[in-house]
Amino acid sequence: MAKAAGGALAGAVSQAGGLGLIGGGYGDRDWIADEFARAGNRAVGCGLITWALAEQPDVLAEVLSHRPKGVMLSFGDPAPFAPQIAEAAVPLIVQVQSLRDAKRAADVGAQVIVAQGSEAGGHGQSRGTMSLVPEVADHLAQSHPDVILVAAGGIADGRGLAAALMLGAEGVLIGSRLWASDEALVAPDMLAAALGADGDDTIRSTVMDVARRLNWPDRYTCRVLRNGFTDRWHEDLAGLIAVAEAEAAKWAEAWDAGDPQGANTFVGEAVGMIDTVRPAGELIAEISAEAEALLGHGWRR
Amino acid sequence: MAKAAGGALAGAVSQAGGLGLIGGGYGDRDWIADEFARAGNRAVGCGLITWALAEQPDVLAEVLSHRPKGVMLSFGDPAPFAPQIAEAAVPLIVQVQSLRDAKRAADVGAQVIVAQGSEAGGHGQSRGTMSLVPEVADHLAQSHPDVILVAAGGIADGRGLAAALMLGAEGVLIGSRLWASDEALVAPDMLAAALGADGDDTIRSTVMDVARRLNWPDRYTCRVLRNGFTDRWHEDLAGLIAVAEAEAAKWAEAWDAGDPQGANTFVGEAVGMIDTVRPAGELIAEISAEAEALLGHGWRR
Repeated sequence: MAKAAGGALAGAVSQAGGLGLIGGGYGDRDWIADEFARAGNRAVGCGLITWALAEQPDVLAEVLSHRPKGVMLSFGDPAPFAPQIAEAAVPLIVQVQSLRDAKRAADVGAQVIVAQGSEAGGHGQSRGTMSLVPEVADHLAQSHPDVILVAAGGIADGRGLAAALMLGAEGVLIGSRLWASDEALVAPDMLAAALGADGDDTIRSTVMDVARRLNWPDRYTCRVLRNGFTDRWHEDLAGLIAVAEAEAAKWAEAWDAGDPQGANTFVGEAVGMIDTVRPAGELIAEISAEAEALLGHGWRR
Repeated sequence: MAKAAGGALAGAVSQAGGLGLIGGGYGDRDWIADEFARAGNRAVGCGLITWALAEQPDVLAEVLSHRPKGVMLSFGDPAPFAPQIAEAAVPLIVQVQSLRDAKRAADVGAQVIVAQGSEAGGHGQSRGTMSLVPEVADHLAQSHPDVILVAAGGIADGRGLAAALMLGAEGVLIGSRLWASDEALVAPDMLAAALGADGDDTIRSTVMDVARRLNWPDRYTCRVLRNGFTDRWHEDLAGLIAVAEAEAAKWAEAWDAGDPQGANTFVGEAVGMIDTVRPAGELIAEISAEAEALLGHGWRR
């Protein structure tokens, strides 16, 4: 949700009873400052890509200066940043894609762990939500019972929320469904492409990172809508690397134009359950009500 | 579960209130006949690999002669076999890994569709259980409301069963948890390797199919425990193909010896939730009771 979740979306989610996160991504300070301003007085948090933060660690002080309700670190070792976040008395949320990284996050003091399955849009790894969440829940129950577990990946409605609670999560992190909201910062044609797609139309790849000249660590791939660009290069990564400069320019131009054929649309498999663009607050209310109806009053953990 | 689920396991599952399936796999007639005999008078079904059945279609008549309670076809187009199964008045179960294949299965007359996520052990595709199940549920609700939807992939306990029901499934297909049962036909060292593994220790690959000289269609990969063999070859498929004959002989020898380092242990990510080998009937009862407790009495669909 880097740069797709700005202050308007984060603020709307928090106003609806969630914790809205600004998608700070790679750490563009001006953008982050502007979006905190746009969130107004609504209490929001901010997500950052951990390995990118390691390249410009003073972004963290900037983020903390906005008194966020939480900082979420994803993709990399959170250890170097945990003390500074703790000192600011800001809750540390760590998003992980494996049991190993969940253990690490708990050990370095995460108050919230988001266990994100491969279904999710954007960057991630290979484990599925259905097995990762209960396995992390078992680990936390044994060794860190106070850590809050949140599920992510493939969750777009009340069914997914109810299922996540059954698996042992205490909440969910929702990406794609809120990406397709009135408040998200998404190009109209990419939104249209996503609304017309089903979950089979997504792919995990690294071609978009070659095109963006981003040095993502090898273990992370990125889920996007398949398009002409992934069809051309996904099976020929070496070929893409050989012409990366020219392809990068074309990709960037397509991105700026909001062209879903030339650049990639960052959504997860849950796109198959998303047919509308709605106000974020309505979505949160509907997801919650649907889960409550499914769970009924007899539900207990 | 090819050849791991014999008549003893299938019979025990059916006796416990499930529908036990003999893992007919690639269609070894003598083995299938023996295992139906071992199931005794207990009503069981049989699973077959669709593309392998297409290579020796008369295996189906043999299976149907045992009056199975269901035939499950996985991995390939079920259309050529649906009429013969319908004529025998045997329920057709089709296991799918994508929305596209779920649509096809419904169109050719499947009475039960198993939507299997990437978490599952053995062969499969890339979609996760968490998004595939509700998306297939939506499709069936619209176009084939009488088809029964079953979830598979990453489900090893009552949490997974309860979650699957929340996602819109009417039941679950359980592999790995029953693979680690008293009745399954599994080499002791492979069982021990699985009990010691977590979900991070599995990998989807095709190297074991090269080693077994099996012509699996390109779109299917196979989840196994990582071992020396996958570490050596997973990133060098061309290298493996170049020495396939020698490696095939070594792999086969290791398989016959039940050696989990030389041959692969076929389990899913749910292996991280499995620490014991138990009687199948006890497992079924425990999974059901745990789901019932989680769901409570207020649950409604």
